[in-house]
Amino acid sequence: MRVGEIRRPEYVPNRIDDPNYVRIFDTTLRDGEQSPGATLTSKEKLDIARQLAKLGVDIIEAGFPVASPDDFEAVRTIAMEVGNDVQPDGYVPVICGLSRTKFQDLERAWDAVRHAKRPRVHTFIATSEIHMKYKLRMSEDEVVENAVAAVKHLRSLGCNDIEFSPEDAGRSNPKFLYRILGEVIKAGATTLNIPDTTGWCLPHEFGELIASIRKNTPGAENVIISTHCQNDLGLATANSLAGAQAGARQVECTINGIGERAGNASLEEVVMAIKLRGNEVMKGLHTGIRPVHIYPTSKMVSDYSGMIVQPHKAIVGANAFAHESGIHQDGMLKNRETYEIMSPESIGLPRQEQDRGIVLGKHSGRNALNSRLRSLGYELSQTELDDVFKRFKSLADKKKGISDEDILALMSDELHQPKVIWELLDLQVVCGTMGMPTATVQMKGPDGIARIGVGVGTGPVDAAYKAVDSLVRVEAELSDYSVSSVTQGIEALAHTRVMIRPSGKMSDAGYSEHAALGTVQRQFSGSGANEDIVVASARAYVSALNKMIGWMSVAQKVAPRAARATASGGAALASVDNGSSAPSAGKDLATSSM
Amino acid sequence: MRVGEIRRPEYVPNRIDDPNYVRIFDTTLRDGEQSPGATLTSKEKLDIARQLAKLGVDIIEAGFPVASPDDFEAVRTIAMEVGNDVQPDGYVPVICGLSRTKFQDLERAWDAVRHAKRPRVHTFIATSEIHMKYKLRMSEDEVVENAVAAVKHLRSLGCNDIEFSPEDAGRSNPKFLYRILGEVIKAGATTLNIPDTTGWCLPHEFGELIASIRKNTPGAENVIISTHCQNDLGLATANSLAGAQAGARQVECTINGIGERAGNASLEEVVMAIKLRGNEVMKGLHTGIRPVHIYPTSKMVSDYSGMIVQPHKAIVGANAFAHESGIHQDGMLKNRETYEIMSPESIGLPRQEQDRGIVLGKHSGRNALNSRLRSLGYELSQTELDDVFKRFKSLADKKKGISDEDILALMSDELHQPKVIWELLDLQVVCGTMGMPTATVQMKGPDGIARIGVGVGTGPVDAAYKAVDSLVRVEAELSDYSVSSVTQGIEALAHTRVMIRPSGKMSDAGYSEHAALGTVQRQFSGSGANEDIVVASARAYVSALNKMIGWMSVAQKVAPRAARATASGGAALASVDNGSSAPSAGKDLATSSM
Repeated sequence: MRVGEIRRPEYVPNRIDDPNYVRIFDTTLRDGEQSPGATLTSKEKLDIARQLAKLGVDIIEAGFPVASPDDFEAVRTIAMEVGNDVQPDGYVPVICGLSRTKFQDLERAWDAVRHAKRPRVHTFIATSEIHMKYKLRMSEDEVVENAVAAVKHLRSLGCNDIEFSPEDAGRSNPKFLYRILGEVIKAGATTLNIPDTTGWCLPHEFGELIASIRKNTPGAENVIISTHCQNDLGLATANSLAGAQAGARQVECTINGIGERAGNASLEEVVMAIKLRGNEVMKGLHTGIRPVHIYPTSKMVSDYSGMIVQPHKAIVGANAFAHESGIHQDGMLKNRETYEIMSPESIGLPRQEQDRGIVLGKHSGRNALNSRLRSLGYELSQTELDDVFKRFKSLADKKKGISDEDILALMSDELHQPKVIWELLDLQVVCGTMGMPTATVQMKGPDGIARIGVGVGTGPVDAAYKAVDSLVRVEAELSDYSVSSVTQGIEALAHTRVMIRPSGKMSDAGYSEHAALGTVQRQFSGSGANEDIVVASARAYVSALNKMIGWMSVAQKVAPRAARATASGGAALASVDNGSSAPSAGKDLATSSM
Repeated sequence: MRVGEIRRPEYVPNRIDDPNYVRIFDTTLRDGEQSPGATLTSKEKLDIARQLAKLGVDIIEAGFPVASPDDFEAVRTIAMEVGNDVQPDGYVPVICGLSRTKFQDLERAWDAVRHAKRPRVHTFIATSEIHMKYKLRMSEDEVVENAVAAVKHLRSLGCNDIEFSPEDAGRSNPKFLYRILGEVIKAGATTLNIPDTTGWCLPHEFGELIASIRKNTPGAENVIISTHCQNDLGLATANSLAGAQAGARQVECTINGIGERAGNASLEEVVMAIKLRGNEVMKGLHTGIRPVHIYPTSKMVSDYSGMIVQPHKAIVGANAFAHESGIHQDGMLKNRETYEIMSPESIGLPRQEQDRGIVLGKHSGRNALNSRLRSLGYELSQTELDDVFKRFKSLADKKKGISDEDILALMSDELHQPKVIWELLDLQVVCGTMGMPTATVQMKGPDGIARIGVGVGTGPVDAAYKAVDSLVRVEAELSDYSVSSVTQGIEALAHTRVMIRPSGKMSDAGYSEHAALGTVQRQFSGSGANEDIVVASARAYVSALNKMIGWMSVAQKVAPRAARATASGGAALASVDNGSSAPSAGKDLATSSM
């Protein structure tokens, strides 16, 4: 593999001085995050944004600020921190916020991103006949008017980096596209993004669409054309590359290809295809991505979002590289390149670890752990490092070798817990084929008092959850439960992940605005790692409950819809936000949600 | 979505009377099965082959018969059963076996498939410079000679349906390809398959390769050109479609896209792209696939192979269809087609179930269960149905609604267990945050005697596995452990899957021939379903151990390498095959493997 120098031209919103440079626009935190169940905490979003900056993405779409107060805050924090962290070579990612064409939305989006050194607002409206007729109930003229007004309004706010998307462009009438795109260029848009919203196009067809837009849209030569390809037919990566080959100079994608339905183009696939084949078969296309950060970023996104990556996922799947274990002779061993077109090291997966899965042991010190964590993309404070090191040592006493997976599991259990409202102190379980699995838990509530709860369930995890429910009393429905394969070896750490959503009396709560679909109910994930799978499961559940209670207590303060729906529960939930300073909050919460 | 009639032309190996018909060649059981850890039992392979026939695939590549005696038997059984099950419309799938160019391999492959009504042998040799130099250590002339000799030898055996693949064609010198392909056509090959073995090509490039082969290979007009695209850059589906648009009339693919490294083109993606867009943008291309069987087939393959499908996998992922839950207004509800380019029903995923996840309850009778099982692709004997129904009723007593996932979990636990050598009778576990998790198991060995074992571990699952190990005493390394999310609801059935490989004194056992990589060590998966996660985990482990012991006891009888490596253990393992008729087998096994 030829690893060339990164040549990143100076950033100017509406032009690129290098004709072959393709901007990478990452929307993991917006399109990826709004996929079912992927709700991330603000801390998680910030971590991912920092990692995306290491990767060198040109634009980070940090969220949909109007979705909820929590989303607004996350975008603003990323704009302030990551959006101002200028590298010695001058690189700093553009921070972008999504917005519908409503003025209120636009103002909120601008308010969130304007703190960045390079702020951008991305606004959109649907242009396909089916969307205009059934979703918008607008005529073509009304749609154009809306789009133009939105772009002008952004300009009036002081925003000079404006992206516009005609939603469902892949199924829109090309002539209407030329018209609306020409009008928004005149109004001041600097990037025109062409979304194949339903993943309908074939590569040659999408390439032709991009070429025809470039050719027929008045003023197209003065703006950047962008692709945004959904993966419903498994063609998102190919379509994005076809778009770039036809002249698009921005590709929108997500880490691991997460997103609505079948997801988006995978950043790692698009980038590695351009890296490996750009010179030879794509007329010299190149990007500013540093591929060595791909693997750590993929791990972080999969871990935080709960969107697992299948073993045969290209580039970042567990099986993606041919491996030695169990191969006695031939092929691979004689020359790796017989079956490998890139090396694991090139994407940040050290070969030795990938083969052995083991990196640290019980004699490893704090520095070794810290340096490994750094290479995985984590910058820890001294206190955080102390906490993780303590658990690391305890695990290393029980387990022969500690792998990256173990470390990540400990990290996500320890450091990425939401604000602790309820804390799991102790758990004891009896189970087996004889039936009547019974769990006893001791938990500390927001009032600081430790209480004991008991549950009998269909299995030990169910029993533990019922015991937790007997104390926490927030009605939640478990929508997903999984234990990921953490490491090789039977004494592995169990890494459990759950997804919950409000239910019962709470089922009208937890709604927020979704860019395309309207109002949707959020789901909340929690993860827990422990040598004991039942303890890990209980920790994950408590973590998800804390995330849900915390999110809703913020949402209650502002979001009108949620407040209306849970008028009685709102006040109690909000008071929980004060934590232990409100001694009666736990009780209130329990009462109000029953 | 337009669901057209299936127009399947008569089968003639080297030509298709309809110029727009694309043959679908499924290699789930060969390329898919040889991916890490996907070892399937013969029973599982037969089930999948039956399901592929329902789906209507034109050719089933059933295996690599020379890999092991078990692989040979599986291919032969599929040839005899599925390969002779002619449908009223005359359809019966071609049954294909893979073979290297060695005469012994070819004879073995022919011996396995010749019982089918339409048998095919697929032989291959590498043609890229890097493969010829480092793997084969052969000159171009020697490679051509080998290929021609292989095809002629197949003809002499009576095989008239011969497929030839120049391995790593995507990186081969086109001129050498024209030459070798021309020679094998002269020798009697009827299908020429063009593999992009390392997933190196871009769609436009692969399309040009297919077009140039068709144009420049002498005799190409009298054979079928085929694609086989690996997914290393996420482009396998797009490359396959580009190949078909350039004139390939066979596409090789796998269910869920499983396979080596990043896998193969996904059958479901290729087929649905042709179905939805064939008329409009692919000049009328069509296939003989009945898409309504896609979802059940995907489920079966994922379940049996242990190769999970990520939630955002196109067509068959859990999130692939936009869903209603949690969407209050707009878009989807006004018109599904705003965000859906195909309906879930069209691929066999009934909308109601997909939304609710629940299909049966405790009042459902045996007929309801059987009819649901049939629609999921399972044909059960009366005894099998009785067994599953018993467990279904017991589960329905504890759980509100029983989903497809629950049923599939029960099925795979109950019916797809390997031959029982060791049986788990009872299990009891105590665990929690206090440490010292302790498990007690009662198991019946091959001698029919029940024994009790105890284990203390780092967690309850580890303790249970140590208790099992104290009785079974076959050294195995756990390479993967996962619990899949089975259903919504906390009282869900836990579906556990483990992957093991021989280790310690056994670590030289379990090898078989791999088509491309040489000799590789097999891994064995096991699955278990139970309301109690620890019981499910123990069942899965025992099932994997039984699969491993069973596979090796067959392998010992024939495979020279394995026999050599485990000379002392071989006899003991083989004797286990006799089951309870050999009262001392369990003891022998325990002794020999320590």
